Amino acid sequence: MSIHPNPPQQLSATDTGRPVRAEMADGRELLYFFDAASAPLNDFTPPVDARDLPERPSASELRYDALSGEWVSFAAHRQTRTHLPAASECPLCPTRPEMASEIPADSYDVVVFENRFPSFGPEQHTSATAAELGAVRPAHGRCEVITFGPGHTDSLASLGVQRIRTVIDAWAHRSTELGALEGVEQVFPFENRGAEIGVTLHHPHGQIYSYPYTTPRTTNQLAQAVAHRERTGRSLMADILEFELTDGKRIIERGTYWTAFVPFAAHMPIEVHLMPNRRVGDLGELTSAERDELAGMYHRLLNTVDSLYPTPTPYIAGWFQAPRTHPDRDEAWLHLQLTSPRRAENKMKYLAGSEAAMGAFIGDVTPETTAAALRTAASRAHGN
Amino acid sequence: MSIHPNPPQQLSATDTGRPVRAEMADGRELLYFFDAASAPLNDFTPPVDARDLPERPSASELRYDALSGEWVSFAAHRQTRTHLPAASECPLCPTRPEMASEIPADSYDVVVFENRFPSFGPEQHTSATAAELGAVRPAHGRCEVITFGPGHTDSLASLGVQRIRTVIDAWAHRSTELGALEGVEQVFPFENRGAEIGVTLHHPHGQIYSYPYTTPRTTNQLAQAVAHRERTGRSLMADILEFELTDGKRIIERGTYWTAFVPFAAHMPIEVHLMPNRRVGDLGELTSAERDELAGMYHRLLNTVDSLYPTPTPYIAGWFQAPRTHPDRDEAWLHLQLTSPRRAENKMKYLAGSEAAMGAFIGDVTPETTAAALRTAASRAHGN
Repeated sequence: MSIHPNPPQQLSATDTGRPVRAEMADGRELLYFFDAASAPLNDFTPPVDARDLPERPSASELRYDALSGEWVSFAAHRQTRTHLPAASECPLCPTRPEMASEIPADSYDVVVFENRFPSFGPEQHTSATAAELGAVRPAHGRCEVITFGPGHTDSLASLGVQRIRTVIDAWAHRSTELGALEGVEQVFPFENRGAEIGVTLHHPHGQIYSYPYTTPRTTNQLAQAVAHRERTGRSLMADILEFELTDGKRIIERGTYWTAFVPFAAHMPIEVHLMPNRRVGDLGELTSAERDELAGMYHRLLNTVDSLYPTPTPYIAGWFQAPRTHPDRDEAWLHLQLTSPRRAENKMKYLAGSEAAMGAFIGDVTPETTAAALRTAASRAHGN
Repeated sequence: MSIHPNPPQQLSATDTGRPVRAEMADGRELLYFFDAASAPLNDFTPPVDARDLPERPSASELRYDALSGEWVSFAAHRQTRTHLPAASECPLCPTRPEMASEIPADSYDVVVFENRFPSFGPEQHTSATAAELGAVRPAHGRCEVITFGPGHTDSLASLGVQRIRTVIDAWAHRSTELGALEGVEQVFPFENRGAEIGVTLHHPHGQIYSYPYTTPRTTNQLAQAVAHRERTGRSLMADILEFELTDGKRIIERGTYWTAFVPFAAHMPIEVHLMPNRRVGDLGELTSAERDELAGMYHRLLNTVDSLYPTPTPYIAGWFQAPRTHPDRDEAWLHLQLTSPRRAENKMKYLAGSEAAMGAFIGDVTPETTAAALRTAASRAHGN
């Protein structure tokens, strides 16, 4: 039995991800997604999760910080979450006779499940709490884990284009379904890769956060877009895309449906934005053709980033999607931001005083230099 | 000859920091500040900096990021800056016969000098460049280094109350003088402490940035304060202070002139705000009595933070000061924010996907827990 007996059915007609749903031992939902080539798995019956799991924690607390205007989640139970387990104890590997993991199956393509240590949720409710000094409300919402494949030492890049295509379908499916849950305002699929940026599980995976508010960065982007519209009558995101294409110096790849570029005023030593060439609000709105091209471009981008240095580069890659009820949501334009703090083979950029306290960023590398390095790495990796 | 032949003379009457000025070999300005007990040094004649230094780099570039509304500085020459030098090569130690450092004297109390690898400056000019897509302007402003003492392995906490009192005078002096330079909008004295947060020089020191714009975090705070004033008719900062005092659970120390507390919705595992009990715009406005009490409280705070764990705790401590020409500057209320990513003896909080990309913070430790731990550490360290 799913804890969502009536999941919303407004999935896009182009969505090819039709997951098989299962329930974990403690009631969490788990979904299996399949590569197009894994058709035999489509009559797959999910194995039972027979573990004896403790009761799920109740929702954490959200507090309003009146000084910044931001809601902060306090998830004290996360302090004890799994931290760099030995490979033999990995909770994202398929279950083996000697080790029952989070995934009961003995193999899989892509699996999504509710996080055992969520920052938001497990419940979702609309809040009537005003954003004012001293305000507290439950941290409703939902946090999911998405595993990109069964191999512990793989990476999303190494898994290939077809797998990335499945991951895109899974992201789109979750964005649509989670975005329709009560009180969920913004869905954020992302991947943290590399121990250097704090990853606590090495198995290739990402996360999908469903926030009960519009996030600060998105709020700020929408305010910028509204001011730009009032000043120029035009879309900020469309103008940014046109500006980058006209300037050309920071373009990494221009496709029929997508453009990848290092932004003019990148905040991080490695930063690439991947934008659809038409205005799209969220991943669920993408057509099949757009998803196909995205899979190839994202695969090349991840391989390119990994070929910059002799060792893999840590990165954060996250999808900015339109919030659900924000009055300026129509200004939002789906895009991915991939950033890395790596500023040389053995040097990381730290966000210290100026960045962390004042939000004032200082770059050591110009965006044109980063773009040129990425284009060189891309032609080395892909011969184009 | 100083490169500022006519420094502004609007120093506060309470400012006891009367530095001796000198010029470095490449024209940078250097100022010696003295502890009250070092009166003999007051007839000190600064030694000549006889090094053969390369010409100073010209100003970096500021680019406007239309998506975030933030100016980003690109200081490519910083990529080669001094990175964790051996103690024998430390540029902040006093000059010895075998090693000419940045400081020509063979001893000193507190020294301030212009950064050889500045993110802003060396020139200051007012800019007429509009903040719009594609905007570029020189990164004018000024970056100074402040060394807290001659001992390479000391810390600001270990140097004691009298030295902190001198540092406060130096901060105040610089805030007033730098804030009066053409085109400087906000002066930010801060200390990054600990290799874990990216410190590239171990010698105890801080920095003073003079930005040619109001920083993003300050802009946001002022917008919050204006909205609060419109809704309630009251000062946001005064209301935050009253809220914390009334609730009481997160107060670390309440003084005659200052209050130290863990904020209600702290963003970091260790976070303490230190606020004057009356509205003060910047450090230059502080009276002698306020500086005296601040020196003692800040000394206790730093010792407390260092006694939380068996090893010293990395931290960022920075002063929020009123910007110069911002229309809402009267809402700004001087305060220090000290933050540390340390969430357990051997664990750091990383700002990964949710925080870095979305600005959505998730805490593992409640502010009340942090406050209780700090109070316990304080009574252990100071017996109060």
